[in-house]
Amino acid sequence: MGEENKAYSSLSHWISGDGPDSEIVMSSRIRLARNLKDFVYPNIADTESRKKVSEAVKDALTSEDLCLHYIQMSDLPELERELLVEKHLVSPIHAENGTGKDVFIDDKESISIMVNEEDHIRLQVLKPGMQLNKAWEIASEIDDRLEQKLDFAFSERWGYLTACPTNVGTGLRASVMVHLPALNFTNNAAKLLSAVSRLGLAIRGLYGEGSESIGNIYQISNQVTLGHTEMDIIENLNSVTSEIINQEKKAREGLMNDIKVKDRIRRSYGVLRYAYQISSEEAMNLISHVRLGIDMGIINDVDPRVLGELMILIRPAHIQKIHGRELDIVERDIKRAELIQNRLSI
Amino acid sequence: MGEENKAYSSLSHWISGDGPDSEIVMSSRIRLARNLKDFVYPNIADTESRKKVSEAVKDALTSEDLCLHYIQMSDLPELERELLVEKHLVSPIHAENGTGKDVFIDDKESISIMVNEEDHIRLQVLKPGMQLNKAWEIASEIDDRLEQKLDFAFSERWGYLTACPTNVGTGLRASVMVHLPALNFTNNAAKLLSAVSRLGLAIRGLYGEGSESIGNIYQISNQVTLGHTEMDIIENLNSVTSEIINQEKKAREGLMNDIKVKDRIRRSYGVLRYAYQISSEEAMNLISHVRLGIDMGIINDVDPRVLGELMILIRPAHIQKIHGRELDIVERDIKRAELIQNRLSI
Repeated sequence: MGEENKAYSSLSHWISGDGPDSEIVMSSRIRLARNLKDFVYPNIADTESRKKVSEAVKDALTSEDLCLHYIQMSDLPELERELLVEKHLVSPIHAENGTGKDVFIDDKESISIMVNEEDHIRLQVLKPGMQLNKAWEIASEIDDRLEQKLDFAFSERWGYLTACPTNVGTGLRASVMVHLPALNFTNNAAKLLSAVSRLGLAIRGLYGEGSESIGNIYQISNQVTLGHTEMDIIENLNSVTSEIINQEKKAREGLMNDIKVKDRIRRSYGVLRYAYQISSEEAMNLISHVRLGIDMGIINDVDPRVLGELMILIRPAHIQKIHGRELDIVERDIKRAELIQNRLSI
Repeated sequence: MGEENKAYSSLSHWISGDGPDSEIVMSSRIRLARNLKDFVYPNIADTESRKKVSEAVKDALTSEDLCLHYIQMSDLPELERELLVEKHLVSPIHAENGTGKDVFIDDKESISIMVNEEDHIRLQVLKPGMQLNKAWEIASEIDDRLEQKLDFAFSERWGYLTACPTNVGTGLRASVMVHLPALNFTNNAAKLLSAVSRLGLAIRGLYGEGSESIGNIYQISNQVTLGHTEMDIIENLNSVTSEIINQEKKAREGLMNDIKVKDRIRRSYGVLRYAYQISSEEAMNLISHVRLGIDMGIINDVDPRVLGELMILIRPAHIQKIHGRELDIVERDIKRAELIQNRLSI
């Protein structure tokens, strides 16, 4: 167990831009929902009960050599909590006030274990690129270890029991974050994604449920947690994602000689490099174009990792953290443009 | 008299961006219309008559030590004629086919004398910045010298006679080309220019009569040639232009802390530096913003002279001349973007 309440202003390993098919798949994520028998679900639990769950999980994790930092959300100022949301390490709900809300995070920020979110335990493993199986391996191993220490709510008939019925069974949500600029340029993204949703998969924007797609980024995840094995769920998502990768690659090839797209990409780069102020949404869209431009060989003087980092660094809490104080929207837009230009000039 | 039919691909002196108030007044121009007694006006003259006029003017100019290059328009390929139009050295009408159409141009491309345009002689002097008086001095001296050699059509009652009644009297058209981006940003240009037109002055776009304003550039000239002395006409234009300069300067000061304008200027610069293709109209508008940005201290790494040159070099004939062959519109837009980026990187 490392230092408590460490200020998480560094960048997570999963945003490195490495990993298989990383020019299209930004990250892979496995999330397991688990609950302790004998305790009511967090949203109806009293303070005492939540504290007990928190203690039990903390004891279980401390006895394992997982090198996780323990953070009590209530100890963190709002800005620090927002930082964790922007890094996808805790959910927006978990960043709100509430007793017994904890999170355990490893040094690389690949693993996060939320306690007393919707379920008692929400274990998440994030990996860069297309690495669902690897993420599953890690998550599964931590899950096994916890199961030896804790008495999970489990039904022979239903499997793992969860606060919301949509998670019952495996408690597994596998998801990939894909970047599909070429499919959007060719107006094929909507069609493809609607086909994907008919295969029992859910499509969401960058920041999860209800969030709109910005920067041509989509989260694709399994809808159904019940009645399939974990491996079935992961294999289904793997194979659908492979097909999406193929379609996006074909679309990129088709754009190779498209002068208008080339122009659009280069203008996006010009605006990123020179704008005096920029919103995070516009910046995400322009960064998306530049990422595509790098992959298509149109832009050669930017490291794609810098763009991956910028996608997180330009979020409001990160901008404010970097500048050491709260900023209003106009100040943020100006500081965001400045930050982007500094990073692009490295 | 210099080398005949020299390829005018170099840049004119007047576009240098020097001269008084050159951050607002791009150039000053004096044009005198003259006709030879005993000859009918060019548009109704037969070939023979036009040739005789051409010979007479050529003889008169050759005997003077004015160091002018003599060009027969019919000897020039279309592209070269277009180049002269883009440099404001001949009118669009003069670039069309026709017998006896000549032009005499000095090395600096400050002086141009069209023969057999609408009138037998159209003498023009162009100077950078606010230099109407200087331009008038030069034009007047050449006019005096020509008058000693040639018998001008002149009436005691009306003054100099011209093909179109709007030029009768002094035959003088004095004009300034002004760059008014701040007045446009503050939506005050239309109001000011409508006030100016009520003072008996004409407002036009960059390429003269009927042309729309692009790049926030306006030509302001006297409407009336009759009933005023040359000095009255020039002094009136001088004083109105002074007022326009004041208004534009005030507007620029007012924009100093305008974040949106600063952002717009910087984005314009970014697009100029990175676009893959660009039309001449868009380029002119972006260059206009960058010129303003330099004057406001927002952009520091561009020489304003480069922008002045670009305003001419990006015109279609110049782009094609530079590339040594005819280009279609798409090719031109691509080569234009390339040219701009090369020049801005110097």
